[in-house]
Amino acid sequence: MGYDLTESAERVGRFSADRDWGKFHSLKNLAMALTGEVGELVEIIQWLGDDEIRELMNTREGRVRVEEEVADIVIYLLRIAQQTDIDLSDAIGKKLDINDSRYPVDIAKGSSAKYKKI
Amino acid sequence: MGYDLTESAERVGRFSADRDWGKFHSLKNLAMALTGEVGELVEIIQWLGDDEIRELMNTREGRVRVEEEVADIVIYLLRIAQQTDIDLSDAIGKKLDINDSRYPVDIAKGSSAKYKKI
Amino acid sequence: MGYDLTESAERVGRFSADRDWGKFHSLKNLAMALTGEVGELVEIIQWLGDDEIRELMNTREGRVRVEEEVADIVIYLLRIAQQTDIDLSDAIGKKLDINDSRYPVDIAKGSSAKYKKI
Amino acid sequence: MGYDLTESAERVGRFSADRDWGKFHSLKNLAMALTGEVGELVEIIQWLGDDEIRELMNTREGRVRVEEEVADIVIYLLRIAQQTDIDLSDAIGKKLDINDSRYPVDIAKGSSAKYKKI
Repeated sequence: MGYDLTESAERVGRFSADRDWGKFHSLKNLAMALTGEVGELVEIIQWLGDDEIRELMNTREGRVRVEEEVADIVIYLLRIAQQTDIDLSDAIGKKLDINDSRYPVDIAKGSSAKYKKI
Repeated sequence: MGYDLTESAERVGRFSADRDWGKFHSLKNLAMALTGEVGELVEIIQWLGDDEIRELMNTREGRVRVEEEVADIVIYLLRIAQQTDIDLSDAIGKKLDINDSRYPVDIAKGSSAKYKKI
Repeated sequence: MGYDLTESAERVGRFSADRDWGKFHSLKNLAMALTGEVGELVEIIQWLGDDEIRELMNTREGRVRVEEEVADIVIYLLRIAQQTDIDLSDAIGKKLDINDSRYPVDIAKGSSAKYKKI
Repeated sequence: MGYDLTESAERVGRFSADRDWGKFHSLKNLAMALTGEVGELVEIIQWLGDDEIRELMNTREGRVRVEEEVADIVIYLLRIAQQTDIDLSDAIGKKLDINDSRYPVDIAKGSSAKYKKI
């Protein structure tokens, strides 16, 4: 369901092919598009405290705004994966292997200090 | 396979729960973490032209660097989805419906001018 | 003193000219470099609450880390201004004129709702 | 003139004080606002090649759009400096000292490889 993006990726690829937009979708341009979309997500919540953000997410309008920006971000990530032949599931698995050894449970537990890249 | 992130999401959730990091994972903090990871991806390619980026992606070391940053970005997106109860597949579907009507094929085809938000 | 960046800009321009780096400093590349540096600033504080950030800024090491990232961001902005012939002081003046009329004091006072771009 | 931001900073500080917005201007929130504004700058040029960006900067409308986003970014940087007591000119000087020793002219000249953080 929610985390199986196979059909999403197919539709994103078709959307782009139908409009002949592949020529704009270099990694450089897509990384910039990603920057722009993350900026739009950030702008929704930048002046709000955590409680206000929870309230926002409990309104239909606020939730839709956040969902649309998150969707835009994932859409560009799917395009990056397609244009550079990255297997997302595989790449995440390898990165989580690295994180497992970098942040052992007994040391990292409950501490943002361990979390930070120091 | 590559675009089914169901198992990735499960593992990301468990990774975070094992370390009791949920308390750091407000939408605000996760949006900032996303910003940081996009910045790291951008830093790899910022001075390179499209040909140099293609060359980079043809080296094992370069490809792994890019894959790790892309993985980090998706990992934080999965956390955002988990912490805010967003159904990624559903959100993308709705956003692509919007994009379909916003960028009709006959008008948008091959044009970045149509693509830009103007 | 602190806000007169005339000498800083001169030195930044010379630094770049000495290394023949102007050829890398297109607006596109510089905007990406800006993204990367903002990401580095964000990464320092992303897991910290406001009190913890104040504590960090009261340590010599923390303050220096933040100052270095802020400096990097301004350095790239100075390069953008130089490469595109933007008069920063003039551009800010014009933007503040716009903001003055967009956010009248009596309506905007003390409200982040008025602050948000809605 | 262009790089002396003393008056700009004064006006930015007054603008914020008049609206009682200091309470929203934590480093965390301002770093997010910076992210959003960089995103807006990036969105203007993300699909354009270097030649198209030069063309854009030669139109009055395009130049104004870029100048407004650059101004927004600098405005938030000035607020960061004000809220955290950073002397921008001093911070830049120290960072350029570091860069001088990190990128010696004879090694770094003309090479983006030396430029990259490797």
